[in-house]
Amino acid sequence: MKLITRSEIESVLNVPDLIAGVEEAFTAYSQGLGEVPPVAELLMDNAEVHIKYGYIRGGEHYVIKVASGFYNNPAKGLPSSNGLMMLFSLATGQPICLLQDEGVLTDYRTALAGAVAAKHLAPKNITRIGIVGTGTQARLQAKCVSEQTGCASVSVWGRTKDAVIACKKDLLDMSLEVNVCESIPEVFAQCNVVITTTPSQHALVCADDVHPGTLIVAVGSDTCEKQELSAELLTRANRLIVDSNVQSQSRGEVFQLRKKAPENTIQTVELGDVIQGNYSPVRSDEISIVDLTGIALQDLKIAETVMSLAANR
Amino acid sequence: MKLITRSEIESVLNVPDLIAGVEEAFTAYSQGLGEVPPVAELLMDNAEVHIKYGYIRGGEHYVIKVASGFYNNPAKGLPSSNGLMMLFSLATGQPICLLQDEGVLTDYRTALAGAVAAKHLAPKNITRIGIVGTGTQARLQAKCVSEQTGCASVSVWGRTKDAVIACKKDLLDMSLEVNVCESIPEVFAQCNVVITTTPSQHALVCADDVHPGTLIVAVGSDTCEKQELSAELLTRANRLIVDSNVQSQSRGEVFQLRKKAPENTIQTVELGDVIQGNYSPVRSDEISIVDLTGIALQDLKIAETVMSLAANR
Repeated sequence: MKLITRSEIESVLNVPDLIAGVEEAFTAYSQGLGEVPPVAELLMDNAEVHIKYGYIRGGEHYVIKVASGFYNNPAKGLPSSNGLMMLFSLATGQPICLLQDEGVLTDYRTALAGAVAAKHLAPKNITRIGIVGTGTQARLQAKCVSEQTGCASVSVWGRTKDAVIACKKDLLDMSLEVNVCESIPEVFAQCNVVITTTPSQHALVCADDVHPGTLIVAVGSDTCEKQELSAELLTRANRLIVDSNVQSQSRGEVFQLRKKAPENTIQTVELGDVIQGNYSPVRSDEISIVDLTGIALQDLKIAETVMSLAANR
Repeated sequence: MKLITRSEIESVLNVPDLIAGVEEAFTAYSQGLGEVPPVAELLMDNAEVHIKYGYIRGGEHYVIKVASGFYNNPAKGLPSSNGLMMLFSLATGQPICLLQDEGVLTDYRTALAGAVAAKHLAPKNITRIGIVGTGTQARLQAKCVSEQTGCASVSVWGRTKDAVIACKKDLLDMSLEVNVCESIPEVFAQCNVVITTTPSQHALVCADDVHPGTLIVAVGSDTCEKQELSAELLTRANRLIVDSNVQSQSRGEVFQLRKKAPENTIQTVELGDVIQGNYSPVRSDEISIVDLTGIALQDLKIAETVMSLAANR
């Protein structure tokens, strides 16, 4: 069994290769080739562990991912998140590789999904990339979406000044050009691709903030409680794209809309179908919204890609 | 994260230390200190993966165990079983140790439970140790129960002559004195401690085979279908001991009896209560039956013990 440490993982991470892997994951999922049982969960006092696992029929490996949040850790000078992924042979069950990523690949998984959405759906001429939020996802989405689209101009908004300044500094270190915005409408005034990355539990983005010709990728809401976009905005959108139609029944932005809308009135398209199909980038008279809640096959393909990159370095 | 390979594990395995760990597991379980969610399962064509996980409140670690059976492996010259265990800090979530045991610790877990049962319940004067079955568990039960009790005389029965001869050879290599029996009644005629280790789906041992003064430890039946002991034998027993009262509602020998007996007429005692309490060894006028189906806390304590033995070697 090969062991790959976090620093080795970080030294081989390669956004284009990882995007290709993640596209395969979404495609396989939408083709019904994924085997993804319910998440296993272990709860402690102020801590939780999630075990995600699955495989693609006809693939080489099954994956088991352990992701933990220990919320007393920051007081001990440690990050809350930790985690690892393991790949096993789908032919013999033998353990193949342990990626001791400490959670960084889970962070990348979400950012890479944003980049895949932008690759297939962003308008041809991107004015600037807007980022709502100032956390880990804000930084990684800026990095991955910028690398994918070639647009190096970013506008960022956050709730607190200190967090925005710290985020701006990190984005400058990635050689991005950065505007700090005073409000969310200002972000949308400057940008026609906007990634929302906050853990908000109420709508931050209103329908009137968004002009036609905009692609919004919402990655903050991954539970039944979180919400970043108003229901009115979703109703006004010309296309609603999700990573999983099934998951959009129980979590994410589309779930918030489903709770209010009459049954069967909401049409969604899966990102895997977008990747395979003839879906054009957002047009100048349209709004497209991509609502991502995360699927385990992304972990599988990211782990396989990183293992392969580490072997070939 | 410390990595311990199978050969390192095998070089430090120490039955008395492991028995002490397993006793702590059963005790914690019966005290209600265990947190053991349902087993997670991944199914493939002619293969299955089980993920078991849990912790003891107030303990140091949580455990995740991966155990797989790939039933096409023997045709490829590989064992069907594989597996590993991981220990994580219960305080911070950090991964502490990966035990790449390839399934051997799961085999030991069952054998050590048999040895714990014999330690607390075997008659004072053991005539011989009887083993029904000739597989991995037959060998390991003979080894662990013999080491625990100090009795080095074993009588073994199996369905096929070749399998019995191979098993006898391995038992002789453990410096045990071995009788091969032609029938199960012959085993019980010679032995007052008998371990049944087969995957039988119908009763092999009848009530009339067993004399008073005998301890039977049944480890073969761990599902809702398997059964080694007749319902009449269980009814005749003076004491029925299980590792888990809850699990005995849905699997094992006691479950087979419950299907036939009127509700609430079957009294069982948990092994953890036996370890803590004033339970005497089986008396000359009694029959005691121990029915073991396996609990995840055994894995936790075995992994902790092996990690500690490896660190101190």
